Amino acid sequence: MSSLRSIPTLDDVARAAGVSTATVSRCLNSPDRVIEKTRIKVMAAVEQLGYTPNFGARAMAAKRTFTIGAIIPTMENAIFARGLQAFQEALHARGYTLLVSSSGYKADVEAEQIRALVARGADGLLLIGRDRDPSIYEFLQHRSVATLIAWTFEKGSTQPSIGFDNHAAMKALATAVIGKGHQHIGLISGIIEGNDRAAGRYAGICDALRAHGLDATAMPIIETPYEVENGAAAFADMMQRTPRPTVVMCGNDVLAVGAMKRARDMGLRVPEDVSITGFDDIELARIVTPELTTMHVPHRDMGQRAGEELVNMLEGTSAGSVVELECALKLRASLGPPPA
Amino acid sequence: MSSLRSIPTLDDVARAAGVSTATVSRCLNSPDRVIEKTRIKVMAAVEQLGYTPNFGARAMAAKRTFTIGAIIPTMENAIFARGLQAFQEALHARGYTLLVSSSGYKADVEAEQIRALVARGADGLLLIGRDRDPSIYEFLQHRSVATLIAWTFEKGSTQPSIGFDNHAAMKALATAVIGKGHQHIGLISGIIEGNDRAAGRYAGICDALRAHGLDATAMPIIETPYEVENGAAAFADMMQRTPRPTVVMCGNDVLAVGAMKRARDMGLRVPEDVSITGFDDIELARIVTPELTTMHVPHRDMGQRAGEELVNMLEGTSAGSVVELECALKLRASLGPPPA
Repeated sequence: MSSLRSIPTLDDVARAAGVSTATVSRCLNSPDRVIEKTRIKVMAAVEQLGYTPNFGARAMAAKRTFTIGAIIPTMENAIFARGLQAFQEALHARGYTLLVSSSGYKADVEAEQIRALVARGADGLLLIGRDRDPSIYEFLQHRSVATLIAWTFEKGSTQPSIGFDNHAAMKALATAVIGKGHQHIGLISGIIEGNDRAAGRYAGICDALRAHGLDATAMPIIETPYEVENGAAAFADMMQRTPRPTVVMCGNDVLAVGAMKRARDMGLRVPEDVSITGFDDIELARIVTPELTTMHVPHRDMGQRAGEELVNMLEGTSAGSVVELECALKLRASLGPPPA
Repeated sequence: MSSLRSIPTLDDVARAAGVSTATVSRCLNSPDRVIEKTRIKVMAAVEQLGYTPNFGARAMAAKRTFTIGAIIPTMENAIFARGLQAFQEALHARGYTLLVSSSGYKADVEAEQIRALVARGADGLLLIGRDRDPSIYEFLQHRSVATLIAWTFEKGSTQPSIGFDNHAAMKALATAVIGKGHQHIGLISGIIEGNDRAAGRYAGICDALRAHGLDATAMPIIETPYEVENGAAAFADMMQRTPRPTVVMCGNDVLAVGAMKRARDMGLRVPEDVSITGFDDIELARIVTPELTTMHVPHRDMGQRAGEELVNMLEGTSAGSVVELECALKLRASLGPPPA
């Protein structure tokens, strides 16, 4: 906060309430340990003066600011929304406030936001995926900011994280697709560079193809940002390829929903003329007609456990663990056998 | 930030770069006014020391923290996502970082988040809707935090705001619905208490009914939080009412999409058996089959202009204006005449 503003201090509150600063501090940090009458008196003074527990008071008293930052790639399209909501609820239950930034999938913007959140006093950070400049991890370590990575799991990593194996999950989905008889898969992927989740999903499909004696290098792939319109445009492009894919696998549900919309506009029936699959199982997947075959990511569970783990790290009851969550294949009507 | 951590200061950076603190400050706040060689030297020192412009330095030098807070009711369902993304882009273009909290539509949580954002040094705040305890506005004024209200417009209000007339917009949509021949409207609304947007939309429908000589008090209404599943459940309930509504108007697209999903599950054809309308025109509205009749809210435009206005207020080039944006009726296939 700018020190040029007139800011009421802990002393001011103590004086107004006629108690010691230690009592004010206790009211703010451990209200259970203060009798109600005193607490009411103190909180009335807090309210009246417009006092905000801050770096000079609550933070110093508790060595914490009770603020957690999260930086997500995008606020649009609800990809991260459900997990983040659960994360916030878990933090709230433990007395922490969440501040969120979105980077637009841009590494430099994310780096700037990490610095801003640290400057604003974040005790801990939730970051999505592990691909970023090592200097960022050094900076966070140097500043003692507890950091948890989510949405990704890497075997052997020691970085505290909670996520799922994008590679294995997409391999399982591709195996189901191939099991329906498809040999010509087209992939509409998110931008792979700088996105370990997108890279893992692509590699998972290639693995499944190879395991079935199919040529992964022949698979047509279009990389495009995760937007409905981009999925639609990429689908139209994919339908021009020779041989025409009998199934279009998409890097997430947002792209898949765009592909379905375009298929409908082009007069193609899903799955009779072409099958379409997604990844994430966000709400969209069951809103479209037909419902979307996809890989269910446990967003709520991941967000909630991330919140609890990060608070435990901050409070010293966890050194930061590496947690893998299971995804679940959702076979729905958008996937059928290839057309005869 | 906790002062218990070892924090590099402006002095440390100046010493490491071999320049004055004024030069460091200039590099951070007006880089255009510093020659490139000096700027590179200073930024290298900033990087090396892990220095973060903060309350003790950049803020004091510029009297600002270059951080803006926004509190939205929910991060789920993409209702606020598009507008917020545009808001963030506008701030970023002016050199400001956005921190977001979501209140879950809870007034006490929002009040807590406002205090947290102010404590973390937010120069300005974007808030959704105008309904909140007057003490919050007093607190913000007392702390000189520039505050802009969005998503709502109230004639005669002097509070800086950018939004649209929820009442007039929903009245226009209801007038179109009645124009199709519907006399039995059922309303699935968001929770009205504490939500001026929901209240305005409800009142708009009542106005349209009265203007056509219909009894607004007879309209069945179900209030429920804005979630797809809630829209579905409320729709099923609405179909039990006598007389059965020939059209279900929904407080937003999220509820409407839930209603459409349930109609499909119940074997009801939209619009042949029952018409359904939404509000917002988020991406969902054109993803569902049939596409949704709704009121288009200019989310991107609103978010972008809110960002510019708030920065102008902070930088003293605007005293804070009251801006009304136009909505646009989108007549699509989910609205037809009542069944014969």
